[in-house]
Amino acid sequence: MYRHVKCHGGSNRCSQVSSKTLTIDKLSPNILAMEYAVRGPLDIRAREIEKELQSGAKKPFKNVIKANIGDVHAMGQPPITFIRQVVACAVCPSLIETCCFPADVKARACEILESCGGYSVGAYTSSQGIERIRKNIAAYLAKRDGHPSDWENICLSSGASAGIKNILRLFCKNIDGKKTGIMIPIPQYPLYTAAIAELGLVSVGYYLDEDNDWGLSAEELQRSYAAAATTCNVRAIVIINPGNPTGQVLTRKNIESVIKFAHEKNLFIFADEVYQQNIYDKNSQFFSFKKILCELGEPYCKTELASFMSASKCYMGECGLRGGWMEVVNMDLDVRAQLYKSMSAILCPNTIGQIVIDCVVKEPCPGDPSYDLFNKEKTYMLKSLAERAMMAHHTFNRMEGFSCNNVQGAMYAFPRINLPPKAIQKAKENKMEPDVFYAMRLLEESGISVVPGSGFGQKPDTYHFRTTILPQPKVLKEMLKIFEGFQAKFLKEFS
Amino acid sequence: MYRHVKCHGGSNRCSQVSSKTLTIDKLSPNILAMEYAVRGPLDIRAREIEKELQSGAKKPFKNVIKANIGDVHAMGQPPITFIRQVVACAVCPSLIETCCFPADVKARACEILESCGGYSVGAYTSSQGIERIRKNIAAYLAKRDGHPSDWENICLSSGASAGIKNILRLFCKNIDGKKTGIMIPIPQYPLYTAAIAELGLVSVGYYLDEDNDWGLSAEELQRSYAAAATTCNVRAIVIINPGNPTGQVLTRKNIESVIKFAHEKNLFIFADEVYQQNIYDKNSQFFSFKKILCELGEPYCKTELASFMSASKCYMGECGLRGGWMEVVNMDLDVRAQLYKSMSAILCPNTIGQIVIDCVVKEPCPGDPSYDLFNKEKTYMLKSLAERAMMAHHTFNRMEGFSCNNVQGAMYAFPRINLPPKAIQKAKENKMEPDVFYAMRLLEESGISVVPGSGFGQKPDTYHFRTTILPQPKVLKEMLKIFEGFQAKFLKEFS
Repeated sequence: MYRHVKCHGGSNRCSQVSSKTLTIDKLSPNILAMEYAVRGPLDIRAREIEKELQSGAKKPFKNVIKANIGDVHAMGQPPITFIRQVVACAVCPSLIETCCFPADVKARACEILESCGGYSVGAYTSSQGIERIRKNIAAYLAKRDGHPSDWENICLSSGASAGIKNILRLFCKNIDGKKTGIMIPIPQYPLYTAAIAELGLVSVGYYLDEDNDWGLSAEELQRSYAAAATTCNVRAIVIINPGNPTGQVLTRKNIESVIKFAHEKNLFIFADEVYQQNIYDKNSQFFSFKKILCELGEPYCKTELASFMSASKCYMGECGLRGGWMEVVNMDLDVRAQLYKSMSAILCPNTIGQIVIDCVVKEPCPGDPSYDLFNKEKTYMLKSLAERAMMAHHTFNRMEGFSCNNVQGAMYAFPRINLPPKAIQKAKENKMEPDVFYAMRLLEESGISVVPGSGFGQKPDTYHFRTTILPQPKVLKEMLKIFEGFQAKFLKEFS
Repeated sequence: MYRHVKCHGGSNRCSQVSSKTLTIDKLSPNILAMEYAVRGPLDIRAREIEKELQSGAKKPFKNVIKANIGDVHAMGQPPITFIRQVVACAVCPSLIETCCFPADVKARACEILESCGGYSVGAYTSSQGIERIRKNIAAYLAKRDGHPSDWENICLSSGASAGIKNILRLFCKNIDGKKTGIMIPIPQYPLYTAAIAELGLVSVGYYLDEDNDWGLSAEELQRSYAAAATTCNVRAIVIINPGNPTGQVLTRKNIESVIKFAHEKNLFIFADEVYQQNIYDKNSQFFSFKKILCELGEPYCKTELASFMSASKCYMGECGLRGGWMEVVNMDLDVRAQLYKSMSAILCPNTIGQIVIDCVVKEPCPGDPSYDLFNKEKTYMLKSLAERAMMAHHTFNRMEGFSCNNVQGAMYAFPRINLPPKAIQKAKENKMEPDVFYAMRLLEESGISVVPGSGFGQKPDTYHFRTTILPQPKVLKEMLKIFEGFQAKFLKEFS
């Protein structure tokens, strides 16, 4: 029963004989292949540095600025009062009698509790979520797009990520001996490469056009498809709009060309639209894929689509409460039944995330007691993010060695760095990607935590990093100043 | 691009030409193979009947009694006040200043908020959960077992199911061309067959011994292993203790024999211990696998183990809030690093479920302002469940055609039905499993919703069903009476 096990991970524990049944060499290769850069080595090192600082270690900075993860509240944004009051009343219905929250808060909590088994958020809901909330989402979508939405096409999920994985796994079938390929943008949000690797699917990258505000080009889609189609069955395309990490907002024309391409190649569209309310550029407007698909008419309006939304982004930023939904459009009804069946084994999305979504799709109306405060908080948040988007874009653009597209939407800037050849050389000597080398130096010397471009994908021999625009305005200003100092020093060292 | 698609699901929609990219014939075979009987056709029909009743349909009953799902609050159990007050304060920190909740509630909420980014439950936590809560779990486990627990071996999850799937997927590797087999009890909780099917692993069933209080026999484990070992690599064994759907509580001796067997065959143990506080039989006691493993000493104490716990069961029954944890023991550290990496892509378990777990592992102590009420509510709940367990077991045992083991623990009775040959014949004519036929008749004629034994697995030519013991005492009594009437009528019809 005892046997030798190969050593991995540089650990000297492995030098001895191991009797483990679960060893690296017997581990799922898909799990080994998964990478999720947003919580990768740089994030782990940032957390270590935080602990070192707490233990009194001396560093050239007082605290770590976590610009690596789109974690709105962690960066000091206060929650939206209406949402939190509704959740508190639903969790503790005695508050409905005893506390001084506005009447519309209490009424909303009662409404939701009436849809819960035993009038409790502790009861399981349907695996697709509470019917009343699904109907409220459908009403929101119909109003947003000017086209009807069927509530039975809507499922709630614990964050958008869970929904995306639920749809992706439907594609796990080799046909004619070939795996399924999923087209994803490069750069992309690494949930996609992680989930695709986990499921044993194939990532088929198409490049976003940095010189054209990170837009999509029809030629590039054709090139990417053709290059992959010989080795896998390309069956779906992922679009992230507004873009993560790239911050672009696609034009109507761009969306039309994607839909036409998807129709031509018979692709299922994944529309990751979790930043749909984060639009900052005055010349940009958010169009949902569903809306454009409806308006293109036959035959394009028959294209299969799943659109994803999250409680973690937009103005509410309730990441920790794990709310989200998806709308499937034109999905074969037998397939939808299989999708819903497959979701039932993990029972249901958490009820609190569902309540947050209810508040998002059915905001207080003018005249409601909560309206003024809600509107003030929401408007302030979106306006402040727009200012921070502008500040980040301008500062990076004026820094030597950087260029940065306009942050039209989402929560990130994705500047390009012109790394000096000596820095690239040094990185290679250290067996690091040059952008990882840069980001690690930035972290160690300035306490700023960003995610290197290689974690999202980028064109060969180009280097980027993603920073959120979420630090509060004063902190962001300070961060950009520190960044500027670091960059000047770095260029001097390696020029 | 257009092509003919085979018709599935009896739908006449399919008779026409389909241009869909995602059709049943191109769907993941693993998804098609998944079944989760607890939310299967009977549950779907029960929900339909509820809607029919709401629309004024005339039935021989006024409402559906959902005894099919372990949904504590939906069956009228009120939540534990302490837990809900802590959650409400953490969600809405203004309550800490303004409301009249006890001081220990407020202190706990503050403690948790100090561990949250930006002092908000809306921030992401570490993918393994909040460090402080992981440490509190470790302290609880050390006290429960009398053996140390390392907090870095503990991960929180959104319900136990998510944790179980996270460990199962590590085993997705074919070795020497053979898939991995996972030993599961028959009957089993169908999350296991569903997750194993989804992941493309192989279910290797071992029978529980109905004549011996649903205990495990070492011979049966050997038989099951030997039968499977030629076609797959058996690498893990799942034990559900206390049992679902079978309600048994394993003896120390039984657990020792499983650990010795697992050691002999080099198996990883999945210890599903989500009902660890639901022990009703005076002669039964809960022993964790971790505890017995530690106490068996070398070489058995080196066996790899993952133990799972949930916020959905025990006395709190907070199903909708999706809290859970797992402790991994003796896991190779490189493998654990891969496990944690693989969990990071879906970011983190929801914070509210984490808070519930914190309250469960760190209860109010004698002297704390919340102690008396907490203790009263917890004790009442567990005592009442014990009474209901007894009531269900006795009633089923005295009914003609039924035999039912003692409900030693968990939340279910799993009686055996002696179906008359004519009923079996009738079921076969209707192309139904005989126990499904029985359960469907029960639902249509009496409004009682149970899960047929075939959804959990049972020995050939034996028939069972699972009913929860969760209806409130008065309703349960009423339900058992209706059941008795139905059974008498059924036997008369088919004798």
